[in-house]
Amino acid sequence: MPDKKISADEVLETTKTLLNDKQYVQIRDALLPMEPFDIAYIMERLPEETIPVVFRLLPKELAAEVFVELESDSQESLIQGFSKTELKDVIDELYLDDAVDIIEEMPSNVVKRILSAADPETRSDINRFLQYPEDSTGSIMTTEYIDLKKGMTVSDALKRIRRVGQDMETINVMYIIDDNRHLLGFVSIRDLLLADEDQTMEEIMDDAIISAMTLDDQEMTAQKFKRYDFLTMPVVDKEDRLVGIVTVDDAIDVLVEETTEDIERMAAISPSYKPYLNTGILETVKSRIPWLMLLMVSATFTGQIISSFEQALEAVTILTAYIPMLMDTGGNAGSQASVSIIRGISLDEISMKDLGKVIWKEIRVAVIIGIVLAVLNFGKLMLVDRMIFHNPITVQVALVICLTLIVTVFAAKFVGCTLPIFAKGLGFDPAVMASPFITTIVDAISLIIYFRFATMLLHI
Amino acid sequence: MPDKKISADEVLETTKTLLNDKQYVQIRDALLPMEPFDIAYIMERLPEETIPVVFRLLPKELAAEVFVELESDSQESLIQGFSKTELKDVIDELYLDDAVDIIEEMPSNVVKRILSAADPETRSDINRFLQYPEDSTGSIMTTEYIDLKKGMTVSDALKRIRRVGQDMETINVMYIIDDNRHLLGFVSIRDLLLADEDQTMEEIMDDAIISAMTLDDQEMTAQKFKRYDFLTMPVVDKEDRLVGIVTVDDAIDVLVEETTEDIERMAAISPSYKPYLNTGILETVKSRIPWLMLLMVSATFTGQIISSFEQALEAVTILTAYIPMLMDTGGNAGSQASVSIIRGISLDEISMKDLGKVIWKEIRVAVIIGIVLAVLNFGKLMLVDRMIFHNPITVQVALVICLTLIVTVFAAKFVGCTLPIFAKGLGFDPAVMASPFITTIVDAISLIIYFRFATMLLHI
Repeated sequence: MPDKKISADEVLETTKTLLNDKQYVQIRDALLPMEPFDIAYIMERLPEETIPVVFRLLPKELAAEVFVELESDSQESLIQGFSKTELKDVIDELYLDDAVDIIEEMPSNVVKRILSAADPETRSDINRFLQYPEDSTGSIMTTEYIDLKKGMTVSDALKRIRRVGQDMETINVMYIIDDNRHLLGFVSIRDLLLADEDQTMEEIMDDAIISAMTLDDQEMTAQKFKRYDFLTMPVVDKEDRLVGIVTVDDAIDVLVEETTEDIERMAAISPSYKPYLNTGILETVKSRIPWLMLLMVSATFTGQIISSFEQALEAVTILTAYIPMLMDTGGNAGSQASVSIIRGISLDEISMKDLGKVIWKEIRVAVIIGIVLAVLNFGKLMLVDRMIFHNPITVQVALVICLTLIVTVFAAKFVGCTLPIFAKGLGFDPAVMASPFITTIVDAISLIIYFRFATMLLHI
Repeated sequence: MPDKKISADEVLETTKTLLNDKQYVQIRDALLPMEPFDIAYIMERLPEETIPVVFRLLPKELAAEVFVELESDSQESLIQGFSKTELKDVIDELYLDDAVDIIEEMPSNVVKRILSAADPETRSDINRFLQYPEDSTGSIMTTEYIDLKKGMTVSDALKRIRRVGQDMETINVMYIIDDNRHLLGFVSIRDLLLADEDQTMEEIMDDAIISAMTLDDQEMTAQKFKRYDFLTMPVVDKEDRLVGIVTVDDAIDVLVEETTEDIERMAAISPSYKPYLNTGILETVKSRIPWLMLLMVSATFTGQIISSFEQALEAVTILTAYIPMLMDTGGNAGSQASVSIIRGISLDEISMKDLGKVIWKEIRVAVIIGIVLAVLNFGKLMLVDRMIFHNPITVQVALVICLTLIVTVFAAKFVGCTLPIFAKGLGFDPAVMASPFITTIVDAISLIIYFRFATMLLHI
């Protein structure tokens, strides 16, 4: 089977040609066998004015699935062009969680259009969902699941599934509730098929439930999917009543998005939630420039340290040449530690109570790495820099550089491992404490140490 | 519902107390309602000699599920202590893909024990699976799926599912094959329940199949799960014959692992695949020190540049004070670009053919950021550094610094966006081209520019 991306690109070319010839039936035939994601991929790459034309060629249900996969700009312009009936058709076909995701990205006049086109029940559901905070479990849940009363028999349950199953997001797991909608347990479709027809739900259900609450952080909920290999997870309110479910596809999206966010924060970028190529120039500038400004201004600090040791540098000018090496090594050593810890915190492997263990580990790692690097560097200074490049390196100068290196690695590892954990403890995102921030602190420490050693050992 | 981690910690304490009192029945009762992941969490934290005791308290099936979740060290010592019958029981209960994962981590004498305990059919399956390369789709697939012949009726199919469903990893999707095992299509359990009893598989199946091949990269396959919202995906051989399936839980593990690997590579750490706290000191040192050595040695380059412009620095010593700021800004600006691109490549949003678009975007972003930072910095130099700190800054010196800043940001963005794409094009992991590597290159460029501007504008 060929890679899907290539075949989507091929269909894209065919579609373009067919559009020019106005061969609409053939376009429909070419798109029908494709996955919604790929049809959206193709539509995004067609001339803008033809997108509604192609969209109207698709059957209702497929059209709704494709709509979900489009970028929000295209969704918005499609909605603007829809007749009220067309809009109602799309919204009726959407799963509630997808509808809510789409609405969250739209400007308020478009939201109004959507809400007025939806039927009253959907409208009230959407309104309720829009009230869940953006990163909460409530905002990614859906209400299209099957609940079964505890007294139902297996054959009742199968009948109910046959009746309502078509419109549900999943029938792989059903949730068992009592008369007050309290969540009691769950049965899988496999349990139902393998059980006797007249057993009741209460008899065959599994009551070891792990559920989420509507206000739980969505990342925490998504991590539970990974940990427990769930396909769906029930969401309950404060009274333990079933209000919705989260499905694994949404959990995957959350995991990937939250990781992208972490990675961007670690690289001093404000998260944007948009694919790189779809982000405008000014948006990209806005997501990058604040951190660069902050870090540039805080570098004043290191500059002042150097100025204040101007005398030492004038006496032994060769010291300047090793500032970049010391700073880069400190920066890299620090980001190794901080990134390991930040990832560990994200994966829920490290928490505040591990602080002692983490520090003790990093101390030992730092001592070994510091000494190895220092010895290696001492050799390099004396053999390469002095003998080959004829730099004016004495044993004392080499000692100053190598001792500073040890302290720098030590400080870098220490700052790198503690700051993210403290940030987490104080309720900040640990990823903000990644490399750039730590680099600035370690730079300052390492320069001060460097000049202290220099004044001591070189008697300047 | 309380957070599971707390409740696992509580059960851990209870278990410890009960172990001291040898209250084994109560331990079993405390553990039974818990998820396998949490039982493994508890067992890992018990005194080592009690692990086999607790393990033997669990019913066979649960024991196997817990076994999968244990760290490989614990798995190994359990296997060493198992009788042949115990080992056979565990292996018989394991899903094939889990068994293969475990075996891949074991030393060869343990592998021999496992293979000799398995029944002949399992043994030959395991041997076949062990031949798939480590990162291939074959290595994460399972053979415990249900296949249905194209001529079967819905009621035949449901009978077959009831008969064999218990031992399968999933019954949510069934795959339809012809007499030569060629993959023709799939039906979901929902399709089966909603169809008429005497319809055939060929009539109700969906034939728009997206499949993977055994040698496909596992990350590519996992990305398809995210893209198409799959729960399972069929795996075929070169003749398009069905040989296995991949399930979404394994796809999630691959996505998370591959991302961790990317993040570690970006921070100049060799990927370790183990949780931070379970990695030994020497292992951590080994994963971090090679890159630090390489980057330290390559910093010789920047050192030599500074040495060769010693005269300029001696003439205008204040220039030294701004080296850290220029280098840090360059490093940060470069890693913003490289990290955005690397993530985009991982998420399959950016490929070689976008190189032109990416460069054009980064050029515009760099010009805006460079100019804004330079203007801001010029103001800061003249107002803060000169008037408040009384640094000897003339307009010419400030110009040298700010012009260098613009060129540095430009070079950083350019190098940062192109190197990862070239790395990808050459078949390397783009993540290796992240910040540390780019920082070293940008440092060198920015220093050369700095001194060129200085000699030109300050007439040194």
